[in-house]
Amino acid sequence: MTEITIIEPQLIESRSFEIISEILGEERLAQIPAEQQGIVKRVIHTSADFDYADNLVFSPGAVAQAQAALRGGCTVVTDTRMAFAGINQRNLSKLGCAKACYIDAPEVAEQAKAQGITRAAVAMQLAAAKPENRIFAVGNAPTALLALRDLVLAGKLQPALVVGVPVGFVNVVEAKELFMELDVPYIIAKGRKGGSNVAAAVINALMLGCLDCQ
Amino acid sequence: MTEITIIEPQLIESRSFEIISEILGEERLAQIPAEQQGIVKRVIHTSADFDYADNLVFSPGAVAQAQAALRGGCTVVTDTRMAFAGINQRNLSKLGCAKACYIDAPEVAEQAKAQGITRAAVAMQLAAAKPENRIFAVGNAPTALLALRDLVLAGKLQPALVVGVPVGFVNVVEAKELFMELDVPYIIAKGRKGGSNVAAAVINALMLGCLDCQ
Repeated sequence: MTEITIIEPQLIESRSFEIISEILGEERLAQIPAEQQGIVKRVIHTSADFDYADNLVFSPGAVAQAQAALRGGCTVVTDTRMAFAGINQRNLSKLGCAKACYIDAPEVAEQAKAQGITRAAVAMQLAAAKPENRIFAVGNAPTALLALRDLVLAGKLQPALVVGVPVGFVNVVEAKELFMELDVPYIIAKGRKGGSNVAAAVINALMLGCLDCQ
Repeated sequence: MTEITIIEPQLIESRSFEIISEILGEERLAQIPAEQQGIVKRVIHTSADFDYADNLVFSPGAVAQAQAALRGGCTVVTDTRMAFAGINQRNLSKLGCAKACYIDAPEVAEQAKAQGITRAAVAMQLAAAKPENRIFAVGNAPTALLALRDLVLAGKLQPALVVGVPVGFVNVVEAKELFMELDVPYIIAKGRKGGSNVAAAVINALMLGCLDCQ
């Protein structure tokens, strides 16, 4: 018979992270740089998918650069309303940060139709024009990641971090590989996997890292 | 060198579903009942995780019962704002349906604190009291699934469908197993995996099934 031991709400998360650490094991955890561990574990927490212990790739210094921007009160741009909803508003406010998502702005649909490109790509072009937008979290659309790449190559964007974790089957792997050739701070989930939940989890983990060390 | 073949935005999704079908293979697809295939494929589309071809469990007639409720213009309740954001509003409107999420209602936090239970559980108790709430999509909190079970056992809830896909490490597997003992329509992701993205994908696939056959 299945039995449930009720655990106090505030202990559920810490117990979850203990279990994740146990499953990963000391040896595997030791291979992950200290500043990345909270991010890797939180992505596993949001997906129950241990593939992310191998899939997540960090450019050198990405965590420190992102956290400097968060401590400076930047805006985090997402490609979807799901990722937007998943980013913890209370912790954003504590840091003096904000979140933004342009996917459903009226001009985005118009411009996407006119140019024959995705709304996600247009939304990133709009976002990049605003200097407060320093961190970009892409959980869905590889075309958003490619649009960010074009902006970087054109000298129009110098992000503090790009979280590149689009999920899917068309141009997802390729968009991530192309992005990793750039000299900008990134956290990327290699391969097909990712998602809005993963994008939000990375941002939430980065914020918790800042709040711990403030 | 990585190369990208740009695909027209409106073709990206259909090409993705073709690739998913190819990877699953004809034999494996044939083992999935026809009415469930769109749901299984959409969950894989949102996660790039083929485990869901094996993990998703449907109670007999669950798809038909859920789609009857959707065609009748019900409200879909989610446990998180992420799942709420992920459910396609345009298709809800076409069906005369709505979505609701009570997790951040002021009285929920108060009652959760007073009772020493999770906000997700209180949110489901509130939701169950409103007759328009016929479909419940739980992508995050096993305690929400357990709360729905208690309501069913107490005769206070007869849902048209419960999507039980909480993700995690504490009481997640157990909550799903207990729920599958009930005689109510469910779609459950066995094991630890699931998520708000999975919950939304199941609802979106059910709606598309309705719109195809209207």
